[in-house]
Amino acid sequence: MKINRYEDISQIDKEAKKDYIDRHSAFIHCDSTAKKGEKFKVKVKVGDEYSHPDDFDHYIAFVQLWDGEKFLAQATFTAGMLGSQSNQVEVDFYLVPTKKLKLTAMAYCTKHGLWQSDEVTVEVTD
Amino acid sequence: MKINRYEDISQIDKEAKKDYIDRHSAFIHCDSTAKKGEKFKVKVKVGDEYSHPDDFDHYIAFVQLWDGEKFLAQATFTAGMLGSQSNQVEVDFYLVPTKKLKLTAMAYCTKHGLWQSDEVTVEVTD
Amino acid sequence: MKINRYEDISQIDKEAKKDYIDRHSAFIHCDSTAKKGEKFKVKVKVGDEYSHPDDFDHYIAFVQLWDGEKFLAQATFTAGMLGSQSNQVEVDFYLVPTKKLKLTAMAYCTKHGLWQSDEVTVEVTD
Amino acid sequence: MKINRYEDISQIDKEAKKDYIDRHSAFIHCDSTAKKGEKFKVKVKVGDEYSHPDDFDHYIAFVQLWDGEKFLAQATFTAGMLGSQSNQVEVDFYLVPTKKLKLTAMAYCTKHGLWQSDEVTVEVTD
Repeated sequence: MKINRYEDISQIDKEAKKDYIDRHSAFIHCDSTAKKGEKFKVKVKVGDEYSHPDDFDHYIAFVQLWDGEKFLAQATFTAGMLGSQSNQVEVDFYLVPTKKLKLTAMAYCTKHGLWQSDEVTVEVTD
Repeated sequence: MKINRYEDISQIDKEAKKDYIDRHSAFIHCDSTAKKGEKFKVKVKVGDEYSHPDDFDHYIAFVQLWDGEKFLAQATFTAGMLGSQSNQVEVDFYLVPTKKLKLTAMAYCTKHGLWQSDEVTVEVTD
Repeated sequence: MKINRYEDISQIDKEAKKDYIDRHSAFIHCDSTAKKGEKFKVKVKVGDEYSHPDDFDHYIAFVQLWDGEKFLAQATFTAGMLGSQSNQVEVDFYLVPTKKLKLTAMAYCTKHGLWQSDEVTVEVTD
Repeated sequence: MKINRYEDISQIDKEAKKDYIDRHSAFIHCDSTAKKGEKFKVKVKVGDEYSHPDDFDHYIAFVQLWDGEKFLAQATFTAGMLGSQSNQVEVDFYLVPTKKLKLTAMAYCTKHGLWQSDEVTVEVTD
């Protein structure tokens, strides 16, 4: 099983390849520090500059949020949830951290497999 | 299989029963109208005035969002995600509606079973 | 949210209705007694005399196994897993019972919603 | 995010390490050839010579079956399903292959992360 990794698309020449990589990649949007014991929002969005189809035979079926090796949460979607138009799948998870987070998101496209985000570190302060 | 339903806790006398019903019930928070073809945020939160434990043997393991009979999305959680303290599970889903929504949320507690929210209607305008 | 229930199709006249109900219903196949502490196989099959499509926009997306109010397990499928031909989704779960089981299975069709099986009781002996 | 891989335990000296690797690894049990268009059973079992705990804070929460980069199916379990005793999680999936399969299974332990099986190839004949 192959896991695709995000590549910095500013370093890529071909427009089609930029689009392909960006629209499949999960991006983690959250603050860089969290307060211990308080609810902390983590948005996972698939695609940054580009959008992905939402067709029955080609859509983003799930995203996962991991903290290091630990599975935190998964959101599972159905085709058509984004109105069957190209768009960016998006979900906000809420966690209550007790120590430093090393977040990774995974996104699964029914045609182009599993994609792993860059790791995002969140410092947790008292 | 029994599905528990939300009851209006203002009509309930016993504090323990209010707490039991409220902390297990999924509540849908969203606007009452959406714009056709635009992203629409739907927050599902479990518990309104009360909080639920987040213990290994007793936590909210998943919430689902339905539109009428149609399954839209599920968020699956792991014990400890809320810092192993009582809190309210929360997730924001994003959909792009094309017609009137009749949203229902389900929440599953590993000790007290499945709970169905009241239905929330969302008008969709051009 | 509506949950569809199995009806005895031998009591139904119209062929199309027999087919509709049967092909969406989950059936639990297992022994009527289990030995305490030993692995016990529970097959869930969707459809008994009829088959269900396996198309991108119309397939059985998941089945669940419940013991009373307790969620035991879920199997999630992807369209095309049955070769894109009509067939009966099937999965075998294995559990180790410690007391009497009251099993219910749920099946979800992406076009025709959620279907609940009849309850199957399993006595557990020492 | 780190994915653990199976290692041949006959090459490992330390008993604790053999046990650790074996009890977390998913093993695919199926025939080496399948008939095109016919139902084909694939058993996924976690652990071969060793068993894994089934405790609330330490259990196998899910297994996945992949065909190359394509996600086929997932089975999600709850703690206690194996009677809260050490055992081997097991599930049988059924697919209808149309071409050569390259199966990989993943297993997730709530304490020790994600484990990837060796790939199993299945030739599909007419």
